[in-house]
Amino acid sequence: MFFASDNWAGAHPDIVQSLVQHASGFAQAYGTSDLDRRVEARFAEIFERDCQVFFVGTGTAANALSLTAFNKAGGVTFCHREAHVIEDECGAPEFFLGGSRLHGVDGPAGKMTADTLQKAIARFPEGFVHSGRPMGVTVTQATEIGTLYSLAELDAISAVCRQHDLPLHMDGARFANALATLHVSPAEMTWKRGVDVVSFGGTKNGCWCAEAIIIFGDRFTGELPYIRKRGAQLFSKTRFIAAQFDAYLRDDLWLQTARHANAMARQLADILAQSPGGRLGWQPEANEVFAVLSPTVAERLQAAGAVFYPWKLPRTSDITLQEGEQLYRFVTSFATTSSDLDQVSRLLRN
Amino acid sequence: MFFASDNWAGAHPDIVQSLVQHASGFAQAYGTSDLDRRVEARFAEIFERDCQVFFVGTGTAANALSLTAFNKAGGVTFCHREAHVIEDECGAPEFFLGGSRLHGVDGPAGKMTADTLQKAIARFPEGFVHSGRPMGVTVTQATEIGTLYSLAELDAISAVCRQHDLPLHMDGARFANALATLHVSPAEMTWKRGVDVVSFGGTKNGCWCAEAIIIFGDRFTGELPYIRKRGAQLFSKTRFIAAQFDAYLRDDLWLQTARHANAMARQLADILAQSPGGRLGWQPEANEVFAVLSPTVAERLQAAGAVFYPWKLPRTSDITLQEGEQLYRFVTSFATTSSDLDQVSRLLRN
Amino acid sequence: MFFASDNWAGAHPDIVQSLVQHASGFAQAYGTSDLDRRVEARFAEIFERDCQVFFVGTGTAANALSLTAFNKAGGVTFCHREAHVIEDECGAPEFFLGGSRLHGVDGPAGKMTADTLQKAIARFPEGFVHSGRPMGVTVTQATEIGTLYSLAELDAISAVCRQHDLPLHMDGARFANALATLHVSPAEMTWKRGVDVVSFGGTKNGCWCAEAIIIFGDRFTGELPYIRKRGAQLFSKTRFIAAQFDAYLRDDLWLQTARHANAMARQLADILAQSPGGRLGWQPEANEVFAVLSPTVAERLQAAGAVFYPWKLPRTSDITLQEGEQLYRFVTSFATTSSDLDQVSRLLRN
Amino acid sequence: MFFASDNWAGAHPDIVQSLVQHASGFAQAYGTSDLDRRVEARFAEIFERDCQVFFVGTGTAANALSLTAFNKAGGVTFCHREAHVIEDECGAPEFFLGGSRLHGVDGPAGKMTADTLQKAIARFPEGFVHSGRPMGVTVTQATEIGTLYSLAELDAISAVCRQHDLPLHMDGARFANALATLHVSPAEMTWKRGVDVVSFGGTKNGCWCAEAIIIFGDRFTGELPYIRKRGAQLFSKTRFIAAQFDAYLRDDLWLQTARHANAMARQLADILAQSPGGRLGWQPEANEVFAVLSPTVAERLQAAGAVFYPWKLPRTSDITLQEGEQLYRFVTSFATTSSDLDQVSRLLRN
Repeated sequence: MFFASDNWAGAHPDIVQSLVQHASGFAQAYGTSDLDRRVEARFAEIFERDCQVFFVGTGTAANALSLTAFNKAGGVTFCHREAHVIEDECGAPEFFLGGSRLHGVDGPAGKMTADTLQKAIARFPEGFVHSGRPMGVTVTQATEIGTLYSLAELDAISAVCRQHDLPLHMDGARFANALATLHVSPAEMTWKRGVDVVSFGGTKNGCWCAEAIIIFGDRFTGELPYIRKRGAQLFSKTRFIAAQFDAYLRDDLWLQTARHANAMARQLADILAQSPGGRLGWQPEANEVFAVLSPTVAERLQAAGAVFYPWKLPRTSDITLQEGEQLYRFVTSFATTSSDLDQVSRLLRN
Repeated sequence: MFFASDNWAGAHPDIVQSLVQHASGFAQAYGTSDLDRRVEARFAEIFERDCQVFFVGTGTAANALSLTAFNKAGGVTFCHREAHVIEDECGAPEFFLGGSRLHGVDGPAGKMTADTLQKAIARFPEGFVHSGRPMGVTVTQATEIGTLYSLAELDAISAVCRQHDLPLHMDGARFANALATLHVSPAEMTWKRGVDVVSFGGTKNGCWCAEAIIIFGDRFTGELPYIRKRGAQLFSKTRFIAAQFDAYLRDDLWLQTARHANAMARQLADILAQSPGGRLGWQPEANEVFAVLSPTVAERLQAAGAVFYPWKLPRTSDITLQEGEQLYRFVTSFATTSSDLDQVSRLLRN
Repeated sequence: MFFASDNWAGAHPDIVQSLVQHASGFAQAYGTSDLDRRVEARFAEIFERDCQVFFVGTGTAANALSLTAFNKAGGVTFCHREAHVIEDECGAPEFFLGGSRLHGVDGPAGKMTADTLQKAIARFPEGFVHSGRPMGVTVTQATEIGTLYSLAELDAISAVCRQHDLPLHMDGARFANALATLHVSPAEMTWKRGVDVVSFGGTKNGCWCAEAIIIFGDRFTGELPYIRKRGAQLFSKTRFIAAQFDAYLRDDLWLQTARHANAMARQLADILAQSPGGRLGWQPEANEVFAVLSPTVAERLQAAGAVFYPWKLPRTSDITLQEGEQLYRFVTSFATTSSDLDQVSRLLRN
Repeated sequence: MFFASDNWAGAHPDIVQSLVQHASGFAQAYGTSDLDRRVEARFAEIFERDCQVFFVGTGTAANALSLTAFNKAGGVTFCHREAHVIEDECGAPEFFLGGSRLHGVDGPAGKMTADTLQKAIARFPEGFVHSGRPMGVTVTQATEIGTLYSLAELDAISAVCRQHDLPLHMDGARFANALATLHVSPAEMTWKRGVDVVSFGGTKNGCWCAEAIIIFGDRFTGELPYIRKRGAQLFSKTRFIAAQFDAYLRDDLWLQTARHANAMARQLADILAQSPGGRLGWQPEANEVFAVLSPTVAERLQAAGAVFYPWKLPRTSDITLQEGEQLYRFVTSFATTSSDLDQVSRLLRN
């Protein structure tokens, strides 16, 4: 019953098998092997267009380096005020940006709206050097609280970006989970919506350590090879990332693992919502469940070995907590089993 | 016949097996799993003292973050002028240092001497803000041209460091190769010589992607957790690095692979030195061979599929090249076989 | 009728005269002349204790370099969310900090409270690397909207700082204006309240260009000489700053000019409050008046040549604007005359 | 007898008078006053073409911000290995560049040659991310050792820049002194030679504190306003810099002061060269004299109150020093008098 995070799981057997298979033999280093090339081509297939692919080692690296491609002196990047980039990366984006700022934008359900984004941008009058200047926008899909931007919401955000000529980045640490729920293609969720750059995450969904920066168009590609090497993210044996993605993207493994995780989350949500004194913070849309539990229930689960963390209330939330109650986060993954859920269910029934 | 670099090899079977073994099950993320702790303890055994261990993903990261622990405004770090940190990391150290400078120090055989280091430091008078101020020294062991600092040479460098109260860092991307030749213990090559921080490399010697920053004493440890996370080098599933090191450090695998690579290098050196018109640039001391080849010989090898790169003459070298001659680098690894060398030998005899 | 900003005024005649007097002759450069030393001693007198004094050229430099003295990897500095450092310096603090973040704290009247600060700090659990870590607090005195922290409010902020071992910086771009209203000594408004570092501004109050970083205690002094030089703020002919401060601090000129500016602000506030349809946003406490004017009144003033700017509503403000109404800022200075105010008064009476 | 540096002098009376004249009245802040505009237009006249002008406070700021306009990830800027930017600015350029490197280029007489520059650039093969990539070239005119690039030498450097598409910056801290010796126009020494950006210094030649970044063409102008503000170099009362330049550039004051300083240097060189045991290090071409003095002579001068500093031997110098001898630097300025020189002469004759 491990619901602490999707990165407490190890690697999916198919991923492991791919690493075994590619471990022997010699191959060009630093991203130029045949396997690297093949996986890059696979990304182009999946996204239904040419794209530049840059492997990196962590989601934080994918986000920070992506934003660095947009960098300007005095630049400001807009994100939801509780986005992962601003709350959970120890300032890595601003560090890689050399001080350019992330500006937190309000919005319900963990999401900026076109309106709150527009208002935030309006605080930076054109040409007024004192306030700095907008340089980009980043959305998290799925969001930090397990919700999703609909295609219409992405369109609205994207329209604001185009109006101000701001590139749009998507933090897709849980890209597959979002896709699995929305039942759309990768293209439909990204460049067809106006997204310029994607942090494409594999780690949380079954890889050991496989993240990629995907760039559509040629606006930012020239800089990335240098940004990546300078950022200590050019791995020498890149085929170890390529080998993970090779299995991940084959036969829709990535979508299967995401669908499984999402399904587990929905079932877990139902179970927790029905616990004595329990209720959902909001409906899960990907693989994270946020639920208010009574202290009795929480303790009973923990005593039985379930691992999950308390979570701070989103600032826009209208949840009110009774004495002793607490909001908790439960994360499912490819490795979550029905048996785990049954066990939770049994514990709550008693 | 792949001699392009030791990172053209994949992963050693024992490393791969360890990844297979640790892939299932759940474990704490971000460096706090039992396996992480166990491997950290193993490092303490190997170094015969308490040490702090920080896993990172690339050798460039290990170097850049290590030096960042020493950082000061206007700081200057001394390294050999042809060291990897200054020549081959795209400015990553200076980037992570926020602009603090690497200062290239002269010296024969790819090594600073106590004397050249002393003279370089003397260019920065104490308290004279205009020139900046010394903040650290970094040696590469084995060096970028495959030579080694002897223990006596390290002692001499270290004495200069102590005199100026400068911390001493060792870039050990090929740490095991150095150790294997010197026949000394890890402790004898590091903290017993006054080394404060080591970039301990596993990738070039049989791992996929496993590097660690080892810190002796508690002078710099408080900062590293934040420096690493901010530097996008805190992996979520750290046990994938721990699992590699677990196998790497068990039963002296790391020393065996290094000894093998070094032995292959020595044999290859003998073969190349006897090639028609060929000669060694200098004696190999680890797993890299630098040889001047006649154009005929070089072409014959390449035509037969041997992969190796031309190399620029070290600035301190006294080699003179004849028309068409070129200095080449050959790197051996755990995956180099006697059969590879026999093939080279046969090609040269014809 | 120039109320656009206190930096639209030139230099006070006594300041100008001091520059004339010190222009001839030779003196040591880079902050070591006799005059530099004398002015530094004068600061110690004024603050009634030893302090380190570092001249810089702009208020932005004073703030950015001061905060850099506190810098830590993953560091977060707390300021009011509408403070000058976060809204009007084009990201200079974060740039000089290499990406360390400013975190905006809520609070009425342009001020953090001990409570809002405490809550903001609580978002950064100790040792949790993902969120980064608190590294300092900065208050603006007078604030960006012309209000003041009382001594009791400073004590409360300072107690929170001490509890978390965070250094406290005061942005004193309008230090003298604050002092003049509070009727306290410089010591009482700073180190006796627990302030560690002050950006001491002279420019807005009658100098051409004279700012100083004042450091109490020896916690941060060793770094500042290098931080300043590396930050391009070590002037060669520093005596031109020293000469300005020499006159500024002699015979309480600085307090006289501040008292004058504050008095002009209070009179202007009375005049504007009585204008047809006009009202104050809040009571002025230093040399800035924020007033809501009817469009008729605003246009009449502007047509007559008065210069003043519209100002965005503070986010914590409870002001509601009618159609056509607008909040405006009026700033007075040593150069504002009673005749200017009379002219405004006459225009409003018609 | 102050020869320590040209920044030991104060301000020229005409500069001081201009500050007196412009001290009263109100004017727009932050570089938009009528006087700012007028002085900018004057720069265009002097350079005989449109140019963008950005006032800053120090020569270090002018250099660092200029180079930042060229910045690229992994970027390398080439300068002479003993240039002021690399030896005397405490790493400010690399700090403002966020870690991009200065690469020291060899060359006699304090100057790069087209050949040494070409060879240095050749160490960075195109597209090879490991080494980083060239992004600019900076020459110092006059150089750090008082020599000058001839127009032909500048043409040769510039041709190398164009071949590699590298922008060319000129550090003109002693621009006027160079111009005065070469007897050419500002245009002929800069953009007609292919110089893109100039650090135009006024401080060493009679101003208190007046430096400007001059940009030809529109390649870099959009970024500079933000780079300057973010760099804490946007002064509020910019007219205090404008007022200095207004006098400086009127009626060729700047050229007169430079010619005077240069003439004083030549006379001083003759005097020192004839001192017992004395000789010139090399011929002075601007306002700096480098001479080897016998210990007796040096002590006699110092005992009589002459101020001048020992200087380290340039690495390319062929000077050999006898026991007790030392190379010294003497700097003249607008404030050096014939009477100073007579006094030196008398002291040496005795």
